[in-house]
Amino acid sequence: MDKQKNIVIIGGTACGPKAGARARRCDPQARITIVEQEDNLSVATCGLPYYVSGTIVSQSKLVTRSPEFFRDVMNIKTLIKTKALAINRKAHKVEILELKTNRVTTLDYDKLVLATGSIPIVPDVVGKHLEGILTLTKIKDANAFRELLSPRQIKKAVIVGAGLIGLEMAEALAVEGLEVTVIEAMNRVLPTLLDFEMATYVERHLQAKGIKLALGQRVIGFEGDENAWVRKVITENTETKASLVLLALGIKPNIALAEEAGLAIGHTGGIAVDQYLRTSDIDVYAGGDCVENVHRITQQKILAPAGSTANKHGRVIGTNVTGGAETFPGVLGTTIAKVFACNVARVGLSESQAREYGYDVSTCLVPGLEYASYYPDGKEILVKLVVESSSGRLLGGQVVGLGEIAKRIDILATALTFGATVDELANLDLAYAPPYNSAVDPLHDAANVIRNKHAGYAKTLTPMEINNKIKQGEDFVFLDVRSPSEWESHRIEAPQVRLIPLNGLRKSLDVLPKEMEIVTFCQTSRRAYQAQRILDGAGFRNVKFMDGSIDAWPYEISSNEPRAAR
Amino acid sequence: MDKQKNIVIIGGTACGPKAGARARRCDPQARITIVEQEDNLSVATCGLPYYVSGTIVSQSKLVTRSPEFFRDVMNIKTLIKTKALAINRKAHKVEILELKTNRVTTLDYDKLVLATGSIPIVPDVVGKHLEGILTLTKIKDANAFRELLSPRQIKKAVIVGAGLIGLEMAEALAVEGLEVTVIEAMNRVLPTLLDFEMATYVERHLQAKGIKLALGQRVIGFEGDENAWVRKVITENTETKASLVLLALGIKPNIALAEEAGLAIGHTGGIAVDQYLRTSDIDVYAGGDCVENVHRITQQKILAPAGSTANKHGRVIGTNVTGGAETFPGVLGTTIAKVFACNVARVGLSESQAREYGYDVSTCLVPGLEYASYYPDGKEILVKLVVESSSGRLLGGQVVGLGEIAKRIDILATALTFGATVDELANLDLAYAPPYNSAVDPLHDAANVIRNKHAGYAKTLTPMEINNKIKQGEDFVFLDVRSPSEWESHRIEAPQVRLIPLNGLRKSLDVLPKEMEIVTFCQTSRRAYQAQRILDGAGFRNVKFMDGSIDAWPYEISSNEPRAAR
Repeated sequence: MDKQKNIVIIGGTACGPKAGARARRCDPQARITIVEQEDNLSVATCGLPYYVSGTIVSQSKLVTRSPEFFRDVMNIKTLIKTKALAINRKAHKVEILELKTNRVTTLDYDKLVLATGSIPIVPDVVGKHLEGILTLTKIKDANAFRELLSPRQIKKAVIVGAGLIGLEMAEALAVEGLEVTVIEAMNRVLPTLLDFEMATYVERHLQAKGIKLALGQRVIGFEGDENAWVRKVITENTETKASLVLLALGIKPNIALAEEAGLAIGHTGGIAVDQYLRTSDIDVYAGGDCVENVHRITQQKILAPAGSTANKHGRVIGTNVTGGAETFPGVLGTTIAKVFACNVARVGLSESQAREYGYDVSTCLVPGLEYASYYPDGKEILVKLVVESSSGRLLGGQVVGLGEIAKRIDILATALTFGATVDELANLDLAYAPPYNSAVDPLHDAANVIRNKHAGYAKTLTPMEINNKIKQGEDFVFLDVRSPSEWESHRIEAPQVRLIPLNGLRKSLDVLPKEMEIVTFCQTSRRAYQAQRILDGAGFRNVKFMDGSIDAWPYEISSNEPRAAR
Repeated sequence: MDKQKNIVIIGGTACGPKAGARARRCDPQARITIVEQEDNLSVATCGLPYYVSGTIVSQSKLVTRSPEFFRDVMNIKTLIKTKALAINRKAHKVEILELKTNRVTTLDYDKLVLATGSIPIVPDVVGKHLEGILTLTKIKDANAFRELLSPRQIKKAVIVGAGLIGLEMAEALAVEGLEVTVIEAMNRVLPTLLDFEMATYVERHLQAKGIKLALGQRVIGFEGDENAWVRKVITENTETKASLVLLALGIKPNIALAEEAGLAIGHTGGIAVDQYLRTSDIDVYAGGDCVENVHRITQQKILAPAGSTANKHGRVIGTNVTGGAETFPGVLGTTIAKVFACNVARVGLSESQAREYGYDVSTCLVPGLEYASYYPDGKEILVKLVVESSSGRLLGGQVVGLGEIAKRIDILATALTFGATVDELANLDLAYAPPYNSAVDPLHDAANVIRNKHAGYAKTLTPMEINNKIKQGEDFVFLDVRSPSEWESHRIEAPQVRLIPLNGLRKSLDVLPKEMEIVTFCQTSRRAYQAQRILDGAGFRNVKFMDGSIDAWPYEISSNEPRAAR
């Protein structure tokens, strides 16, 4: 009979407990120990903003498993409030500190699992240690927020960083009645996720919900009051009063233990692992936020911390530390967030990332409805695809909107996994019934727009390109083909704009200059494309349409009403 | 210069108009004519049940394009209220009858498109021509329903056929206050879509909504009153009073014109087309409900009428009749329906279909929540996967439930398109945030259950297999591992059932017979699987768990409350 295997897992949030449970199911005999510094195991960290906002009422909801569960059901020993101090790889030992007693002991291991997670990035600026400046990665952080908020005395908050946690917390704090300013060093919200025009969509929604945005502003310090409590956030150009600050600049892998133990660290800053999630030591595995992942499109190493990935890692590690040989194929950086009523998601590469990687890129901007237009109350979404021009292969997608987008991003994630082309995307047999979808899904539409571009039928300019032309006073016709009533309701104002409704276009060809550049647009770009084809067919030489048209226009429009319910 | 191409399209519902519009965008010069027997073009037929129910208020919502649009914008001639009588393939002519004037004329074509759609199946039984017996495939049918319903005098309706339209209309009529009985010849609702246990889930929901189900009953006739109005529906065993009957036995391809013209008809009964959607005549294309499709899993020809497919067909045909060479890759039979609050969908092969095709099949039944368990108000779903055992390749999936399922079925549709295995499905990088998903999606769970079965870790029996064992009085332990409070609330009653809560199982091993067959179960089967592994590890020789456990149990349970809100 085999010697009973000794498995030690450092980290008890997501990957660690999952690895332990899987290891137990694969090996009923192994000795399994989980070491966790905090006082809870199996914590749903992604729920923290919703716990701060009160959507999730009780802390206990976020703790999905108790130490008793691990003991009684899983036969796993859990050491909570216990910090791993050092790994002695040669001796196969981990030195641990019991925080309550300050007692240091050691654990022997045959296989060690590092699931040490991540730590929040804190900017090295003056005043960063003032009271009232918080991060949010643990339940105790969320409780700190709740305690600060419950007396209802704090009126103004600043969130530093317009990433996922920043925007989720903007909502959580606004719901609590605070005046919230989000300061972001980049020129847009969610800069690592979204391209400019998609981010703008989210920004309009945030502003409509009362969130103040200070974009392109780098925080250089914090000012405190006489009690060393924060009262001001200072950027190069601005000062913003606040008595509560969330630092939401992202997280970085917690690699201290691994590094000190001499394990290989990737250039991304995460622990380097192979496809079996084994570190540079064959007896040490690592998973979750502390490791780097392979991006399935670029095959490059990236950091992509996510609870979903941590769980998958846990399974792979649990299998492998008990003698299996499961592999993890990598990630697509799939991300989704609710920002007030706006749903925001991306998968794969953004346009800017794809261009940085040197891909020859086609894109499209396609507004659509979440389900059949004739079924009541369907809400708007906006799809952007990023496609390799030469092959038609999908590289990434972004979807934002008040309507259903999780489905669309997951379809794209699945398609990307298998190297789908736009031809394949356009012919996916997606489920159609009026309460769920249109006969032609917005993704089908988007794929067809790219196909039409590649076939030479559709010729487009992006809203950004057109805005530049307008700013430079270029001579072209910017042809609105909507109806007069739509024009009355809202319109783009520029000297180049002319209105000829689509249904009158064939009769109005004479009034348009045949040799001049014409860029058509409408609300969603469907009519604009049709108009382009009409003009092409009538011998006009230089006609394009605006990708995404008004629905994707990231700049000002003149309107008699507030801009569509974003 | 090329001769102007002459394109005639017969059929104006979905495929026809789409083919025309695409042809126009590809060829600005072609002469394009659409011939349509009814008085509307571009009709959203799938919306008809929602128009009957009043969810869609106005008929005009269902007509997405007007003849004026085709004339002014598309430069397409439309002949409505015009019936195509015959095709003279040799002469390249179509004989048409203008229904208003009874005038017969001919149209010349270079390329002909048949988009003749489908016709409802009407059973050849006595009384089928009585008043009050309707079908529902056109707007005029829906208007007939609305006219019959508006005086609010009809109290009882029978729907013959528990397919998609049958169940959508059951809801529409129940909402109007009618007592509705659905009669179905097969032993379950949605028999061509769902396996037994999944159909049962939907049946419970229908019954909870007050719908009467008469399953396994074949209608043999209708009885009328003195005004020749239907008053009774007669099956071999029953008579059901009704003054309104919907025949919802499905549809068949409308192939009369094609057949008379000598075009090849497939053994499915649909017009045979190649991957370019060309019929046996190189100048005649066909698409939409009138053709047969290739099933992407089996590569067999099937009938799979769907508005989504008709639109894709239209694009392919529009490209090809103007000189292009686009192909259509086939379908997966993806289908979704709202049945009251229950969402129902399938893709690919059901278990029964897969077995008929001779596949060696693994299945799983996995209950889950639509999103993170700790996020409030998440609703239940139930996933069934059908997988080829030898390869691990996905063959099909079914998802039902009150929670979000459209996303899951579309992920499966995409995965099936690319021949995904369960290993690949389990590692899809799906979008995770609490309002949208769990860290481990129910699909991940389901894929992992199959992987655990293939690896020999998970051993299961289906609820149906266990029910047979119980009925036959077999000697085994049916071990409920839920908590005492769950047991109090609801339980399966059988002499073989014993309760040992999971957290006490390791301490109770002595009370269980080591050599006897033990089948564990819980609410969702997660704890049941864990229990199986505990017993396996303790040396029990014959332990399995019940796939899907109580959530997938299609039979009676004892309960202090109505069974979970289905």
